[in-house]
Amino acid sequence: MLKVILSGCNGAMGQVITKFIESNPDIHITAGFDRNPDKFHNSYPVYNDLSLCHEEANVIIDFSHHHAFEHIVDFALQRKFPLVMATTGLTAENKERLLELSTTLPIFHSANMSLGVNVVLEIVQKISKVLEDSFDIEIIEKHHNKKADAPSGTALMLAEGIDQSLKEDRIFVYGRHTKEDHRGKKDIGIHAIRGGTIVGEHTVLYAGNDEIIEIKHRALSKNIFAAGAIKAAQYILGKEKGYYNMGTLLEENK
Amino acid sequence: MLKVILSGCNGAMGQVITKFIESNPDIHITAGFDRNPDKFHNSYPVYNDLSLCHEEANVIIDFSHHHAFEHIVDFALQRKFPLVMATTGLTAENKERLLELSTTLPIFHSANMSLGVNVVLEIVQKISKVLEDSFDIEIIEKHHNKKADAPSGTALMLAEGIDQSLKEDRIFVYGRHTKEDHRGKKDIGIHAIRGGTIVGEHTVLYAGNDEIIEIKHRALSKNIFAAGAIKAAQYILGKEKGYYNMGTLLEENK
Amino acid sequence: MLKVILSGCNGAMGQVITKFIESNPDIHITAGFDRNPDKFHNSYPVYNDLSLCHEEANVIIDFSHHHAFEHIVDFALQRKFPLVMATTGLTAENKERLLELSTTLPIFHSANMSLGVNVVLEIVQKISKVLEDSFDIEIIEKHHNKKADAPSGTALMLAEGIDQSLKEDRIFVYGRHTKEDHRGKKDIGIHAIRGGTIVGEHTVLYAGNDEIIEIKHRALSKNIFAAGAIKAAQYILGKEKGYYNMGTLLEENK
Amino acid sequence: MLKVILSGCNGAMGQVITKFIESNPDIHITAGFDRNPDKFHNSYPVYNDLSLCHEEANVIIDFSHHHAFEHIVDFALQRKFPLVMATTGLTAENKERLLELSTTLPIFHSANMSLGVNVVLEIVQKISKVLEDSFDIEIIEKHHNKKADAPSGTALMLAEGIDQSLKEDRIFVYGRHTKEDHRGKKDIGIHAIRGGTIVGEHTVLYAGNDEIIEIKHRALSKNIFAAGAIKAAQYILGKEKGYYNMGTLLEENK
Repeated sequence: MLKVILSGCNGAMGQVITKFIESNPDIHITAGFDRNPDKFHNSYPVYNDLSLCHEEANVIIDFSHHHAFEHIVDFALQRKFPLVMATTGLTAENKERLLELSTTLPIFHSANMSLGVNVVLEIVQKISKVLEDSFDIEIIEKHHNKKADAPSGTALMLAEGIDQSLKEDRIFVYGRHTKEDHRGKKDIGIHAIRGGTIVGEHTVLYAGNDEIIEIKHRALSKNIFAAGAIKAAQYILGKEKGYYNMGTLLEENK
Repeated sequence: MLKVILSGCNGAMGQVITKFIESNPDIHITAGFDRNPDKFHNSYPVYNDLSLCHEEANVIIDFSHHHAFEHIVDFALQRKFPLVMATTGLTAENKERLLELSTTLPIFHSANMSLGVNVVLEIVQKISKVLEDSFDIEIIEKHHNKKADAPSGTALMLAEGIDQSLKEDRIFVYGRHTKEDHRGKKDIGIHAIRGGTIVGEHTVLYAGNDEIIEIKHRALSKNIFAAGAIKAAQYILGKEKGYYNMGTLLEENK
Repeated sequence: MLKVILSGCNGAMGQVITKFIESNPDIHITAGFDRNPDKFHNSYPVYNDLSLCHEEANVIIDFSHHHAFEHIVDFALQRKFPLVMATTGLTAENKERLLELSTTLPIFHSANMSLGVNVVLEIVQKISKVLEDSFDIEIIEKHHNKKADAPSGTALMLAEGIDQSLKEDRIFVYGRHTKEDHRGKKDIGIHAIRGGTIVGEHTVLYAGNDEIIEIKHRALSKNIFAAGAIKAAQYILGKEKGYYNMGTLLEENK
Repeated sequence: MLKVILSGCNGAMGQVITKFIESNPDIHITAGFDRNPDKFHNSYPVYNDLSLCHEEANVIIDFSHHHAFEHIVDFALQRKFPLVMATTGLTAENKERLLELSTTLPIFHSANMSLGVNVVLEIVQKISKVLEDSFDIEIIEKHHNKKADAPSGTALMLAEGIDQSLKEDRIFVYGRHTKEDHRGKKDIGIHAIRGGTIVGEHTVLYAGNDEIIEIKHRALSKNIFAAGAIKAAQYILGKEKGYYNMGTLLEENK
């Protein structure tokens, strides 16, 4: 039986995970944390101060907000709970603290909990190297019209993953509007389309001499992020202290 | 027999048209105009001053540059040649002069000579009205990495066509890069992807509540612009003075 | 207040509509009909014999099965309820009876209740005529791996709509597997992709000489069919007897 | 200086390679072979019997027809010329003979000479293993309306590559047309779209629970096959006897 403390339980993703777990008899949420603890009626107690939470658990899943980062991490350390960190927008200091924490506890961290997106990340890191000299790289993402940030954190994760795999540093270009200026050889154009209720779509385009390769991921519902977070939780349950991510999880599944 | 004076004959499109006409026994280029008359060996005489051109013709096809606009138009008027104007980037004054000229001669004018793109323009003007209240509209175009302007003239033609068909004025947004700001209800996002040797691709995306409509045109070679220009030339050959475009041509073909 | 009798209320679409209406204070389901009346706990009474149903209503929405067709139609006639018929797979006799019924009652009938798909149907009927001579037409649809019929009813609706709009009759080709045989000029290839949980995607492809036009509709959830059925119900509420469909509804919205 | 004997020089691909090499000063065609030696005026002598060919060369590139296979191979063996075999539709015996020949000479063999398609082949073999249990796999290819075989050799190459990488054997399904039968768990649906002048497009679709991954390759002109064949020729020039393909070439480029 997987017993979860769900941080950010009253946010959009928190409610998706709550419903996802309700339909799964092998997983149980023992407590939640949220800055708005009374926003929804959940079947588990919700705290806005984790020092009041004494419930048992095997793992914390965090989908809250980077403002709450220190509070969550202190709690994980004190209770010695493995931590699945799915909150985006972490600062450099946050990331350092996470690495430090991983010398004591098993920590899983990914900016995107979907299995598929992480398979795509692996692919593009591999082939960008092969195609570097003769193909131009552009990233196109599509999301719903309520999304506040553009480009998406996942588009940036893909761009940075590609950049790291290449010999030459790339320049990220966010949209183009010019009369006189053609594409630079080292540009990675990143394009954020917004409209309707699109859940999330990411395409990496490689355009060469008379041939094009496109790698596309499309999310059809937010359930894939819930499923990925649960998979991550189950994966670190039996693990030693250490820093894990979707790359290490995929590697073990091969 | 269609006898053509080809203006801009030594540019990229001019050479495509030259080759296109060479394989067609019913059409003949009698003379060319170009600011670089010696750049290519053509099977017809090429002038950089049309006052020296005394060849006969039924029509002028212009794919040169808007800097040459007045020179071409004066020549058409003097010789009373119908004019197919395919040069982009015309100023407001240019367009006014063209309208004036059409009270004397048959004038055909389009920013994109492809039949398919103009069918797409017609569609999107019709359905944008129907979808206006409940769908967000975005335009995505892809071209080769040598293209100097972004977005393309055709993307702007589509955006303006849509804007004119709607009750409420739209705001054109060229790329997005923000942490805090979601899509405005009246935005039309326009995205210019650049890479490799892509000839030209235009997509109009309508994203609504849980459904998406996409209208896409893809050019596989520049021959389609040559074919469209010839079709336009044949179309205005027997016409009275007046202002014609792909809309009127398509209308007559129905 | 719209008062609905929902036929087929315990099927997949019936439950989607039930949830959709629950979140809408202006609409109320007064009774349901289903061959499995006890399958779900609904907030309204469910009958498997409509002669037992005495609830009031302004309209019947039918998403049941064509086997129940006569039972529904008899009930509509007896109670003089306008009818939204969304059940697919109707026989020629069924369709004739529906036309006959429309001389007494307002009847709305469509094989696909999504607004977007019907906009696509209108478009392709219009442009197929224009593109008939120089473009090849193919239809590609994608659905989840549980779908029993291939191609989808909507793909067939599009193919038939196109066929009717053209001068020359077309031959529908379902998949291709050959070593020796190239495409016939009058073929419309229809391709049924199946996989995962894809809700529904339909593309009409026009491939000509060096240019391609694609018209694509993508459903992101079944809610769009619920929304369309409610819109249809509201539309025929104030109508005289007659035969209505998404085409007439869209026409009035222009 | 690369000196090439071009087999199949008067076929469609042969002429593409001829033009491609003409614009490249470092490569020279010393002789051609074709069953229709007089079909085109080439700048090199063309034989329909290679025993009459005494020109020098560093390599043979074969884009002819599998009927000529033995003739080409005998000639390569006799003159000790490395061989780039790009002809498709080889029989099992042909392939065995090629392997045997590779114990004497360097042999390069691929069913598709494009760099990009072979990168895609590598990707899909790797990720199909990872996605095997939870994603359905379908292949969609698009080609021009003159293509005689459906599906394309490249689609079959991708399907077989995927099949070999998986634990469980797959069943290839060519199109679907049914009223009653849903997708089998082990199916790989293969769909051949035909229309206009499409050069070639191949998509591998992975459809899982609420997420989709698409890997797509698009050829914009046949030049990519010429470029790939030249690259293959240069690659085996300095090689020992042995059997080489795009996989080994890509591996060395990493």
